Amino acid sequence: MPHNQQILLDNRPTGEAVASNFKLVASETPALQDGQVLVRHHFLSLDPYMRGRMNDSKSYAAPQPLGQVMQGGTAGEVVESKSPKFAVGDKVVGMGGWQQYSVVDANQPGMLRKVDTTHVPLSHYLGAVGMPGVTAWYGLVKIIAPQAGQTVVVSAATGAVGSAFAALAKARGCRAVGIAGGPEKCAYAIKELGFDACVDYKLHKNAESLSKALKDACPDGIDGYFENVGGMVLDAVLSRMNASGRIALCGMIAGYDGQPLPLTYPALILTNRLKVQGFIVSEHMEVWPEALNELGTLVATGKLRPRESVAQGIESAPEAFLGLLKGKNFGKQLVKLI
Amino acid sequence: MPHNQQILLDNRPTGEAVASNFKLVASETPALQDGQVLVRHHFLSLDPYMRGRMNDSKSYAAPQPLGQVMQGGTAGEVVESKSPKFAVGDKVVGMGGWQQYSVVDANQPGMLRKVDTTHVPLSHYLGAVGMPGVTAWYGLVKIIAPQAGQTVVVSAATGAVGSAFAALAKARGCRAVGIAGGPEKCAYAIKELGFDACVDYKLHKNAESLSKALKDACPDGIDGYFENVGGMVLDAVLSRMNASGRIALCGMIAGYDGQPLPLTYPALILTNRLKVQGFIVSEHMEVWPEALNELGTLVATGKLRPRESVAQGIESAPEAFLGLLKGKNFGKQLVKLI
Repeated sequence: MPHNQQILLDNRPTGEAVASNFKLVASETPALQDGQVLVRHHFLSLDPYMRGRMNDSKSYAAPQPLGQVMQGGTAGEVVESKSPKFAVGDKVVGMGGWQQYSVVDANQPGMLRKVDTTHVPLSHYLGAVGMPGVTAWYGLVKIIAPQAGQTVVVSAATGAVGSAFAALAKARGCRAVGIAGGPEKCAYAIKELGFDACVDYKLHKNAESLSKALKDACPDGIDGYFENVGGMVLDAVLSRMNASGRIALCGMIAGYDGQPLPLTYPALILTNRLKVQGFIVSEHMEVWPEALNELGTLVATGKLRPRESVAQGIESAPEAFLGLLKGKNFGKQLVKLI
Repeated sequence: MPHNQQILLDNRPTGEAVASNFKLVASETPALQDGQVLVRHHFLSLDPYMRGRMNDSKSYAAPQPLGQVMQGGTAGEVVESKSPKFAVGDKVVGMGGWQQYSVVDANQPGMLRKVDTTHVPLSHYLGAVGMPGVTAWYGLVKIIAPQAGQTVVVSAATGAVGSAFAALAKARGCRAVGIAGGPEKCAYAIKELGFDACVDYKLHKNAESLSKALKDACPDGIDGYFENVGGMVLDAVLSRMNASGRIALCGMIAGYDGQPLPLTYPALILTNRLKVQGFIVSEHMEVWPEALNELGTLVATGKLRPRESVAQGIESAPEAFLGLLKGKNFGKQLVKLI
């Protein structure tokens, strides 16, 4: 029964999330019952959606319960098994949460997935070849559905979703334009991720100014947009959308602290006959096999080389998560546990 | 060569449109060339979209040119013909504009359409069995695509689009809820148009209050919304949308005077995974035959009995149009010329 350090949600944020919302505790892992396996987590995934779940408000998912282990994706190794479906040593991804170990009922479908780390590093199954990658795939392929030659834009361009979006868009012959914060991220987006251009939103104080920069980066206008951010960035992009454009709305990180984040000119949706569609990828499990197959191939062939920000040790998870919400990460934010 | 009174756009509105933006002039109709017909207009159609075109700004249609006859739908009778396609006495609908007569090139496809007034009064081809009816049809059938038993809502409920929307929604087994201004319109919506409920937006000073009234009218939430108005009404409806709801965005009359009309909580599109889609029905000519067929049958069988507000005489068109923009009309706004 290994010693298991865990991070709980201790109290809910009022406004900005802070480190004292979390609490580090330790317990022993329980003895396994028949059908259960014990997974040792190598990596925790930190994702923006977790901030929304810290609030006690209506959203697509139930709120993170108080006093319980923070929920989230994990990648690790089976270290003990009372299930014929998993053997000790199997590499697996699941939803183990912010802790060092988890006990999983292997009979529940979808709880634990065996992965092959021959060509794809284990950590990438939490990013490019995991939930963020499938998120990019769904928004691009199913909502934006671009034709070759069209211009598609993504915000938070160097993050896990943005990186995958670039590779998927280039594979479809699109012009891919990123929006990111700071010159280092923008240079990286172009040099390493394959974006054709990248706009630094930090150089712009309002939507009008950002809109002008987008015009330079997207001389033929914008046909598809993948939104991770909201607020000023969405206002600016909306002003550059071409007729019949599509906007996949996946995150509005700028509004997670509870302040309203109005859309200034919704009439543009009408005048440009846009489709704006919100989605969460966990409601579209039917696309995961196809999406993961394409994403795995892109990684294995070097066409998608996602960057990772790796914090070390379970105790670093809260600060790393708060940094992610402020855009301090560079690429997929992970916590490495061993 | 009959004497032809015409109304021109003389100057563009700054803010609210006013009567002095228009100018009444007279001219003689020219002699017909081969292939042309002369149409005497019985009815002019007045529609909210015309206000948008009075502005000199980017929109889905080119601006109405200054110094030219106001463009718009017309229903009338062929009084002279140099085309084998039309005979004197034919009842026709077209885009003749705000004038008593128009000369039409009958060889240009789509310019003039012969209609049968045996079971459908001529004026209805400008409303329920014309562009507004097809607009309601497209938004309901192609964007909202409701299942029987779902709740669908429309603003400007007693207008030409709203009336058709109710009949089409009831034919599909939906709960149809209207939003209209004033107790008389709301009572009419329920008694004559078949709405299951109607909310009087004039009783509410803000979106929160209107949202509560919508909750009473839509106890199972809102699955589909057809937007003609924008502003506070859209904010209120958005707060009541069910997960995976659809919003057809067809008009935002509240914003035509140029003021921004923000959407207060666009994050709801994400958290409820909504689809918000703008459209204009003239870009979907492929659906017109199917839509007009259903709408004509609903009118001929008495299931859709649209109300009309009829102003008399070409000179009354500007004031009738300005009244329409303020919701003073009750049903489809027409101008009767003879």
